[in-house]
Amino acid sequence: MTGKLYAIGTGPGASDLITVRAARLLAHMDIVYAPAARKGGDSLALSIVREYIGSQTEIKERHFPMSNNTEEKQQAWQAVTDEIVSDITAGKKVAFVSLGDVMLYSTWVSILERLPDGLDIEIIPGITSFALIAAKTKRPLAMETQSLVVMSCTVGKEILAQALQQHSSLVLMKAASCLPDVKALIEELGLLDYAVLVSDASLTSEKQYRNLKDIPADEKLPYFTTILVNKQWSKS
Amino acid sequence: MTGKLYAIGTGPGASDLITVRAARLLAHMDIVYAPAARKGGDSLALSIVREYIGSQTEIKERHFPMSNNTEEKQQAWQAVTDEIVSDITAGKKVAFVSLGDVMLYSTWVSILERLPDGLDIEIIPGITSFALIAAKTKRPLAMETQSLVVMSCTVGKEILAQALQQHSSLVLMKAASCLPDVKALIEELGLLDYAVLVSDASLTSEKQYRNLKDIPADEKLPYFTTILVNKQWSKS
Repeated sequence: MTGKLYAIGTGPGASDLITVRAARLLAHMDIVYAPAARKGGDSLALSIVREYIGSQTEIKERHFPMSNNTEEKQQAWQAVTDEIVSDITAGKKVAFVSLGDVMLYSTWVSILERLPDGLDIEIIPGITSFALIAAKTKRPLAMETQSLVVMSCTVGKEILAQALQQHSSLVLMKAASCLPDVKALIEELGLLDYAVLVSDASLTSEKQYRNLKDIPADEKLPYFTTILVNKQWSKS
Repeated sequence: MTGKLYAIGTGPGASDLITVRAARLLAHMDIVYAPAARKGGDSLALSIVREYIGSQTEIKERHFPMSNNTEEKQQAWQAVTDEIVSDITAGKKVAFVSLGDVMLYSTWVSILERLPDGLDIEIIPGITSFALIAAKTKRPLAMETQSLVVMSCTVGKEILAQALQQHSSLVLMKAASCLPDVKALIEELGLLDYAVLVSDASLTSEKQYRNLKDIPADEKLPYFTTILVNKQWSKS
């Protein structure tokens, strides 16, 4: 008997936004790994999928440091990878769950790049936060000859400005950390009517701003904050 | 009693890649609209979700011309919109199903932009073809400071070249129509090892090319052909 690893995207937050395939698979796992941002903290990804997990399943919440300490991160990722490999080698059916889609800005890729060749791996895609935000705000991502860029604040102001000028639509992930800069840029380009901001989409803490100018100066926006700009769609 | 309209993304093709929310909603609709590419032809979106549709549901397959005749398209879209509005006004629960995610290169947006204000509309996001392709080929879309561009062949060769140079990852939708150009470009930039092509992902007609050079010169690739390039990931 050989084990198998399933990487499962949980989608943005609501439990019923996972795929039917993911829900069915989770009922039959031996072990489910879930990343937690804080040591001893609860895993958001786990809370999303908990209702689908079978009663026979062992749950392993593992801490993934969000720090800028590269060595600490590498060690944490390697330790989880080793543990997963050992479980699969022992013949277990193992799932690793992660928010949104596992192939886009996801902890899963830090595991994937460390896995040895020859393991049986299946990846189940998930709904991205920006697909949900487009749906909630009724603002298309792209049509016909339009193009869409997806990036996070970490690219820096210049690349962000260039992307806003060259493409019809922009999705900016983790937007809280550069909000003053990006707000100024969007206003400068005359795009305030074309931008929306959503935090924690489909979680109980969800917040929406249809106009970036309505965000109070002292507002502390959470980590999962996304801005969507579609330069050809101001109707809301 | 007022009606409501649900726009539902079916995902890329496999029936179990729709969301749990979409599956549950489809069991309770009065009417399901599905776009068909050919007159009198079967709707691919409908075939994906058929197993979830309740027995009380009326199915309305409607032809959406793919032609370049703008007037013909506009008339077809307006006619379907009018029919949907009339059903909602009569108090019906109506779903419109469409492939992939409904807010990205989808017929749904042609309906959305024609709908009058004040209707009760809920949009359910779907898995995009490129999320599935990344999953199947084990090639991440983007990580950390990387950026992702999504476009279709219609943008033209120059914009495509610029995007490939400026961003770490590129998703090119409907890639069959410009395959010789894009293949040449990818080779010129030394990116052959970083590109994959997938047609009809998760349909029975699915085809994968891990190297674009393996595609026979006389190969007729289908409409749903996507190329994914991740300049920082050659491991497959």
